[in-house]
Amino acid sequence: MKQANTGRLTLPTDVDMVAATIRLKDLLGADALRDCDGTDMPEELLTQDAKIYATYYTTRKDNDWAMQHPEEIQQEYLISDRVTARGDRLRIELMKGFHTEQLKVNTIDPPGKWWEVIDRTTGEIVSPDHWHYEESSGEVVIDSIPYHQYTVSFLAFLIWDPVHMYNFITNDWKDAPHQLTYDVRQPKTQVYVKEKLKKWCEANPQVDVVRFTTFFHQFTLTFDDQKREKYVEWFGYSASVSPYILEQFEKWAGYPFRPEYIVDEGYHNSIFRIPSKEFRDFMEFQQIEVSKLAKELVDIVHSYGKEAMMFLGDHWIGTEPFGKYFANIGLDAVVGSVGDGVTLRMISDIQGVNYTEGRLLPYFFPDVFTEGGDPIKEAQDNWLKARRAILRSPVDRIGYGGYLKLASEWPGFIEQIGKVVDEFRQIHANMDGTGAYTAPFKVAVLNSWGNLRRWMANQVHHALWYREIYSYVGVIEALSGMPIDVEFITFDEVKAGIDPSIRVIINAGDAYTAFSGGDNWKDPDLVCTLRRFVDQGGGFIGVGEPTACQYQGRFFQLSDVLGVDRELGFSMSTDKYNTLNPEHFILEDVSADIDFGEGKSRIYAQGEHYQILNMDGKYSRLVVNEYGQGRSVYFTGLPYSPQNCRILLRAIYYAAHREEEMKKYYVTNPETEIAVFEKTGKLAVINNTKEERHTDLYLEGILKMQLTLAPMEMRWITYKEEL
Amino acid sequence: MKQANTGRLTLPTDVDMVAATIRLKDLLGADALRDCDGTDMPEELLTQDAKIYATYYTTRKDNDWAMQHPEEIQQEYLISDRVTARGDRLRIELMKGFHTEQLKVNTIDPPGKWWEVIDRTTGEIVSPDHWHYEESSGEVVIDSIPYHQYTVSFLAFLIWDPVHMYNFITNDWKDAPHQLTYDVRQPKTQVYVKEKLKKWCEANPQVDVVRFTTFFHQFTLTFDDQKREKYVEWFGYSASVSPYILEQFEKWAGYPFRPEYIVDEGYHNSIFRIPSKEFRDFMEFQQIEVSKLAKELVDIVHSYGKEAMMFLGDHWIGTEPFGKYFANIGLDAVVGSVGDGVTLRMISDIQGVNYTEGRLLPYFFPDVFTEGGDPIKEAQDNWLKARRAILRSPVDRIGYGGYLKLASEWPGFIEQIGKVVDEFRQIHANMDGTGAYTAPFKVAVLNSWGNLRRWMANQVHHALWYREIYSYVGVIEALSGMPIDVEFITFDEVKAGIDPSIRVIINAGDAYTAFSGGDNWKDPDLVCTLRRFVDQGGGFIGVGEPTACQYQGRFFQLSDVLGVDRELGFSMSTDKYNTLNPEHFILEDVSADIDFGEGKSRIYAQGEHYQILNMDGKYSRLVVNEYGQGRSVYFTGLPYSPQNCRILLRAIYYAAHREEEMKKYYVTNPETEIAVFEKTGKLAVINNTKEERHTDLYLEGILKMQLTLAPMEMRWITYKEEL
Repeated sequence: MKQANTGRLTLPTDVDMVAATIRLKDLLGADALRDCDGTDMPEELLTQDAKIYATYYTTRKDNDWAMQHPEEIQQEYLISDRVTARGDRLRIELMKGFHTEQLKVNTIDPPGKWWEVIDRTTGEIVSPDHWHYEESSGEVVIDSIPYHQYTVSFLAFLIWDPVHMYNFITNDWKDAPHQLTYDVRQPKTQVYVKEKLKKWCEANPQVDVVRFTTFFHQFTLTFDDQKREKYVEWFGYSASVSPYILEQFEKWAGYPFRPEYIVDEGYHNSIFRIPSKEFRDFMEFQQIEVSKLAKELVDIVHSYGKEAMMFLGDHWIGTEPFGKYFANIGLDAVVGSVGDGVTLRMISDIQGVNYTEGRLLPYFFPDVFTEGGDPIKEAQDNWLKARRAILRSPVDRIGYGGYLKLASEWPGFIEQIGKVVDEFRQIHANMDGTGAYTAPFKVAVLNSWGNLRRWMANQVHHALWYREIYSYVGVIEALSGMPIDVEFITFDEVKAGIDPSIRVIINAGDAYTAFSGGDNWKDPDLVCTLRRFVDQGGGFIGVGEPTACQYQGRFFQLSDVLGVDRELGFSMSTDKYNTLNPEHFILEDVSADIDFGEGKSRIYAQGEHYQILNMDGKYSRLVVNEYGQGRSVYFTGLPYSPQNCRILLRAIYYAAHREEEMKKYYVTNPETEIAVFEKTGKLAVINNTKEERHTDLYLEGILKMQLTLAPMEMRWITYKEEL
Repeated sequence: MKQANTGRLTLPTDVDMVAATIRLKDLLGADALRDCDGTDMPEELLTQDAKIYATYYTTRKDNDWAMQHPEEIQQEYLISDRVTARGDRLRIELMKGFHTEQLKVNTIDPPGKWWEVIDRTTGEIVSPDHWHYEESSGEVVIDSIPYHQYTVSFLAFLIWDPVHMYNFITNDWKDAPHQLTYDVRQPKTQVYVKEKLKKWCEANPQVDVVRFTTFFHQFTLTFDDQKREKYVEWFGYSASVSPYILEQFEKWAGYPFRPEYIVDEGYHNSIFRIPSKEFRDFMEFQQIEVSKLAKELVDIVHSYGKEAMMFLGDHWIGTEPFGKYFANIGLDAVVGSVGDGVTLRMISDIQGVNYTEGRLLPYFFPDVFTEGGDPIKEAQDNWLKARRAILRSPVDRIGYGGYLKLASEWPGFIEQIGKVVDEFRQIHANMDGTGAYTAPFKVAVLNSWGNLRRWMANQVHHALWYREIYSYVGVIEALSGMPIDVEFITFDEVKAGIDPSIRVIINAGDAYTAFSGGDNWKDPDLVCTLRRFVDQGGGFIGVGEPTACQYQGRFFQLSDVLGVDRELGFSMSTDKYNTLNPEHFILEDVSADIDFGEGKSRIYAQGEHYQILNMDGKYSRLVVNEYGQGRSVYFTGLPYSPQNCRILLRAIYYAAHREEEMKKYYVTNPETEIAVFEKTGKLAVINNTKEERHTDLYLEGILKMQLTLAPMEMRWITYKEEL
């Protein structure tokens, strides 16, 4: 196989970078050029031997239209501050804490119909007979019960596009006019936007790829009165609403809409919340409608001989790339930001497009390319995490974003990109369109979202480190680069029957979140199906507070399967007698202390078939349990690290009862990994650290080689000939 | 005032210690001598110039009676292991995990009536038509649903008294016959025990004080099949049951009894559990009946001219010294073990007796008086904690327990006791029956138990350190020695109206426990009463997870009052912008880092009136909030330490809006405290450390003296004359 030294790479450009762009394009072998929000494509480059991408915004950059049709400006459901009444009349200032340059109360549609005042002390709706909106003061006036707490859920127009506002603030733009939004779903705007796209296609014949940023509904991004971020939920649907849409939803769903379905007690259906039936219905409805309308725009693009690419960000709401309507859109490609292995897989696993493209980090932005910044380190760390995921499920292309000038002037940075691009092309050359070897069984991550939110479990913002989540999202990150086929399944799917190809099920996260499952665990069908699954030979891995839901004398409802429960105080009078026994298959490669992150405390082993592999004082952190023919493994937490990847891999093989098969293809050093392409006869051993590493290489259980890998090295071996 | 150098002291003795006892009695000025479980009173000492205490056991030490009346042996509700069915027939071995020398299944009373099989997967009772007890195997056989989990709640006879068994095992006794129990509440035994007591009184004319150990019902103390402690709940009523009693209860309560009211999902109504109505009813019923019957025994004792003393331990269940029936018993005295300030107050605050006696630590037992043991340090630590509580609410007497021989032979130990006894007499001499000055307002600890379990909040076993509780019980320990009148109130009492003398309310503990209150916080009456209380000038102090109960968008239901909430994941998309500002009245004396123990993580400030005094990364550990005319203070945790006592004292004065009154009587060094007896004109300054300490002394807000205190010193000043 011959490796191309061009292709699969997209570079950003700008009007002041014509010569440099050409130089870097040739040096790095880029075959596509793109503009960004804030940069422009120079005329001179349109004729280069490269595909030309153009960012295209369907919902903004046309303030005239927005101002002429204020009723079709995008809307968002907001919830006021929670205010405690001190008497029998309460005034709540709606816009308090919001930025009036971003949002404006919708007084066009009747508040009595579309707003909701809730007594949060009782959970009851306050009848519109007992409140009214006073436009002069911007306050809702409520007949209140003293010392009850109230909220008002209300509609507001998005008079400044959130991403434009974010870029404006972040880049300290001064004179750019605020870009208003408009709602493409609404009748007049829909007609207008389609016509506009046609005209744009006609006016831009040199553009090969229309990169939609994105379609119609922005993820929730709300600013406070000091222009600081107030609420941001990348998965959030709160800004995809309008009476026009909600009236359609009512008809489709067959029941009346309530603002509470969107504002959700103020949590706005954060991905950590167990989604209500009504919110799931709303998501479904939006997917159906968004995919239909998006298809119309894609068809227009195609009719001009251009490709349609979707950016997985900004206005992606309702597209749900792992939902059942996505393929209907007919896109050619998806591009998205790659922060780590998980976000790589979030793009590369998308079906229903011809190709995927990952935008690697760092963005060429001044916050990193500055004194004290270390863009080379960021690029390396990003690549170490992305590379192991690409070996399992590759994006077809990679690219960068931002100001090319910053990257080109940073010493050594272009060389670093060169190495990344070269390794990326090596992977494609050696895999040659085939998949890497995976274990002969599947692993399923069980949560409330399932495959709809594939590779999105336990995250707040993509690839950002959060103290609250790193101990659980580490499990998903580890899986993203493992030689394991991973499914994401819901509780309902488990009840309908576990796919026989699934051998190990993982439940990971904090109690009562969508990820551990909360009240789902009171469902006899769910717990019985899982008990049967494990009893008959399946494996169950719990991380954090798996199956947690205080009920009938237990916190972990599958405490019998897991062999552990968490002490909430109620059982402190019961003696535990837990003792350590760390000799176990799972820990055979492990030499360093295990990092459990900020894993859960107060875990004790119980039952008769457990073995405690790691303790913290009298409590346990890593426990295995035998349950009938099956097995379970429990971790208090498992942040991402090369060693924890290995521990999880071993836990999976142990839980699956397939220990003997683990060394079919195996490297002993936990900080190295192996990817095998049986159809091409190639294998790669990667060093996931920035230091030299030695490792033994096993094939079919037999020690074949001892390797010394340079820092970050990816070593390719044509194993069927060489070994 | 002249201080006596005799009196107020009880010493243990034994048959081999006649001369030594007399020597130590004279040396230390003891005025009472006692026997213990395992030691005997020598004949020779009966005529000494000292009161003679005799331990008296109503429920054991008469195996003949027990064996002749097996149906009146004491009983305990047990719950079997939780067992998961794998088919449609499940066998549960009842005694698995219990010790058959301690407990024996009750097959005399019909299982169908008194036992309960529960499907823990659904929470439903399995009808007796679908299970039966198979006596030959000791198993309950259940028609089961596959993969549902079941428990059997059943009655067992206590064929070995739990405390006798404990002492037997702990002291490695070999040949002592196991002491059976009998239930004094039952008809034949009741008659027999009363007669026996009369005879005993007649036979023991030299005994002055009959020390009941205790009355009828042992706290729950169950051993496992390896003779290890399996379950121990000092507050537990599980061993106070029998069909005889439960039938009376049904009549009294007016509804049918269920075993679940006792076994409580397997938690056995641990004091950490929010008590159900039925369990509270059962406690009430037991108090009524126990106090009636105990009074009959006390009357017998009195009829022989002897005093009746109750040991607050062993069979104290149903006496509830802070309950409304206790005084009816007519006891002369209560004696109990003093582990710290809290347990001191648990004795000294008891009303309805003529005097109280505290048994100080250490017990003269071989586990402490041994190589590697440090009984002098234990005595000092014990005294430092007890002394500050005695200054607020004194026991009338102190005493010791165990083997006097061990104490007398340990170098320096008797001298240490001498110092303790001397200081104890100093306190009584200087207070002369009057009370110490307390702040001009009361502080109330709010939990599910209220005054019934005064000074018992947040504890597992008395005065033992537990990682799970020390961060919250520290608050109660601190209060035990503060110049503050402390009430313990229930949620129901708050709803009925807060006593106007209460200025500050404290809610401390883990979420969903009896101490923080769980679902009580969904009650609008409760939250509104407290909001009004604070709004109108009251103070609220929360520690750990106060008012916690996930509901309507908040975890802490009084988050508006507290200015904080806890992040459970659902609101991670909401930005917080918390910043530190440690300049505050509460921290003015504080120089060292604050110890929050294993306090709660993920606390963020919210609202508009908070100030964050201490942070842990981006989260907060100490926050104050203004709420109308009132104030709140929040701590993630507050283990006991001299500095934390001072922080809490300042927090109380701050929350009460009475900062200016704090220095009425004040010592500046946080490791010192002051107790003032206005009626006698004396004050004491105590050094709560084992190092020398300097402190300024303020009276009426004016600096009066600078003191240097020796390690552990208690300095008395006749302040009205001297200053």
